[in-house]
Amino acid sequence: MPSVRCHDCGRSFPFRERKRCACGEPLRFEPRELPRWPDSSNPGMWRYADLLPVDAPSGIGAAAGGTPMVRTPRLDVGGVRLFLKDEGRNPTGSFKDRGSAVAAAYAAENGIDRLGTVSHGNMAMSTAANAAGAGLDCTVCVPSDIPEERLSHIARYGPEILRIEGDYGRLYEASLELEGIEFVNSDTPLRVAGQKTVALEICEAFSPEIPDAIVLPVSSGGQLSGIWRALSELREADLIESVPRLYACQAAACAPIVRAFEAGEESVSAVEGGETIAYSIANADPPSGNRALGALRDTDGGAVAVPDEETRAARKRLAREGGFRVEASSAVAYAGLERLVERDEIASDERVVTVLTGSGFTESDGAAVDARTIPLDELADRFGRSA
Amino acid sequence: MPSVRCHDCGRSFPFRERKRCACGEPLRFEPRELPRWPDSSNPGMWRYADLLPVDAPSGIGAAAGGTPMVRTPRLDVGGVRLFLKDEGRNPTGSFKDRGSAVAAAYAAENGIDRLGTVSHGNMAMSTAANAAGAGLDCTVCVPSDIPEERLSHIARYGPEILRIEGDYGRLYEASLELEGIEFVNSDTPLRVAGQKTVALEICEAFSPEIPDAIVLPVSSGGQLSGIWRALSELREADLIESVPRLYACQAAACAPIVRAFEAGEESVSAVEGGETIAYSIANADPPSGNRALGALRDTDGGAVAVPDEETRAARKRLAREGGFRVEASSAVAYAGLERLVERDEIASDERVVTVLTGSGFTESDGAAVDARTIPLDELADRFGRSA
Repeated sequence: MPSVRCHDCGRSFPFRERKRCACGEPLRFEPRELPRWPDSSNPGMWRYADLLPVDAPSGIGAAAGGTPMVRTPRLDVGGVRLFLKDEGRNPTGSFKDRGSAVAAAYAAENGIDRLGTVSHGNMAMSTAANAAGAGLDCTVCVPSDIPEERLSHIARYGPEILRIEGDYGRLYEASLELEGIEFVNSDTPLRVAGQKTVALEICEAFSPEIPDAIVLPVSSGGQLSGIWRALSELREADLIESVPRLYACQAAACAPIVRAFEAGEESVSAVEGGETIAYSIANADPPSGNRALGALRDTDGGAVAVPDEETRAARKRLAREGGFRVEASSAVAYAGLERLVERDEIASDERVVTVLTGSGFTESDGAAVDARTIPLDELADRFGRSA
Repeated sequence: MPSVRCHDCGRSFPFRERKRCACGEPLRFEPRELPRWPDSSNPGMWRYADLLPVDAPSGIGAAAGGTPMVRTPRLDVGGVRLFLKDEGRNPTGSFKDRGSAVAAAYAAENGIDRLGTVSHGNMAMSTAANAAGAGLDCTVCVPSDIPEERLSHIARYGPEILRIEGDYGRLYEASLELEGIEFVNSDTPLRVAGQKTVALEICEAFSPEIPDAIVLPVSSGGQLSGIWRALSELREADLIESVPRLYACQAAACAPIVRAFEAGEESVSAVEGGETIAYSIANADPPSGNRALGALRDTDGGAVAVPDEETRAARKRLAREGGFRVEASSAVAYAGLERLVERDEIASDERVVTVLTGSGFTESDGAAVDARTIPLDELADRFGRSA
């Protein structure tokens, strides 16, 4: 049985004995060893299998990670040299597949029959798909007011779906105490272990250099926490000379981490969250908020809140000038980058990786469609016909 | 100016002088050189840039190809060892991005301002996105009766959209004669050049061995033609010892290539196509049908028609037992594999690659959602709570 350690107070426990530390903070796996750039022919994120708590699986889990990171000069902001890491290219369209793949492989190898998760979006689809691919049962707990359309995306993979009446925040913690099922929520150890691989991919691609900054949307803080952990281990192993600055972007209507950062607070307090199109990152009481805050301060990074109108404009620019169709929560990161450049927190000529956490294929943008109808015979009038 | 050669009669022309050969068959680029397994750090399909008519671009075009191919034992059919090549992992969710990326890069490098395409689905999204990413204008010609929802997916990338009243089959040919715009339809040379890379990726992953068979859904025949061409060149270069058998799968309601194959005909004739859920491969008069027929016979492969109820069941099995959410046309290939195994055309223990050509994220399956509503406090009754 591997052991897990508290991110904050450092106490350590056997995995599955406790879900959170007695001090209330999340737990993380101890790494098997310090990272080195692997000599591996494993696909995708399993290139880093030596650093994960489980070996590479077959099936859809094997197809997680290994997402493209491309230089996109047409989307540069004020002289900043932009690289987009397209996590929407994971099997179910979001970064969540990295953690779900680790969890499903671990469960299959260790006689755990059923995975669970508390999610109404990407994490629900991802957990259900990876459970299906590993031959596991799956239970997804969604809020009782979830839109029917979003439910249908989750249902495709055949999990048990429970609409839970009651406080959704309390459900997160309550689910971790249930028996006969392994809940893999957004900052549980198996998920965060998988999340670390996105930072490994980014840094290995830049090696021996590093990007100056990584900008990403933040909800629970689980991904940011995994990235921070991976960067710290890379630094400790001398694989990077210094650590890129980390920047967290949130929707202005629900930005508890940004608020705590700007107010110089010690820890993140719950906010009264409002409506936002970036619903998948609207977490009013982020369970890894304190980890996120630590990551931003420790790396000399920052935080930025983005109003929905800027998110809409960013989503449009990413699609119409870049060809990237992302969900609103990913557009928050690009809009956030624009604000950070304007505020001179990121300087011209710096190299910045923005993480596009999820594809926009399952999300409508509500924009009107502009199409003309013309008879076939008039098509040549529009263009001219070659002789 | 590179030259293009007729697939059939072998006549050669400067590229852009003619769109089809005088004999009516499609044209293809002459390869710059015979393939070798590259020593390249280019991303995705651009690993094979030396074999393409254009160098690797930046932006979304750079992110095409390099899709995962994973062994999926849980989806094996009758002892056949299945590998799924997940082309839904391309930037706009389908295999079309390989050809669109080549076309957009070529246009940007050669002063062509506008790309066009005739499509109501994947190819439209893909061409529009890749044009956007390369800073080109784009015109998409769709049938006048296209459903509004499908139009909204295309519109996200901001192309000019023309609903064309008239014969959609005739539009394909008519569009190639237009001036001031480069139409990249399903079997035009730039597109087919890009399509070849999927076969290169499959064969390099198996090298020095080969898979016994490749099974794929077929519509215009453009992809099959590209794969056949790539395999022939790999064989000529002695990079593979023999050529995998190629199998074409079509929806039973619209299966002109299967019909011609089964009837032992010399060429493919147009059929009266019926309705099918696999609308994106329902091509009643496939422009590269004769190339497809040649590929199937030359490689000792075959063809199979699949009724919609088997496609539905295959799509469900891929999602619920494999975690792969695909569009109906990709499920046709998995259902086709099941038929081929039943008919003993593919034998137990053979290694088969099935190409999942497109993701199912933009497609509804119309299935009812099964979800229960329970109060939070009763959740523990469902599972039990740990002590």
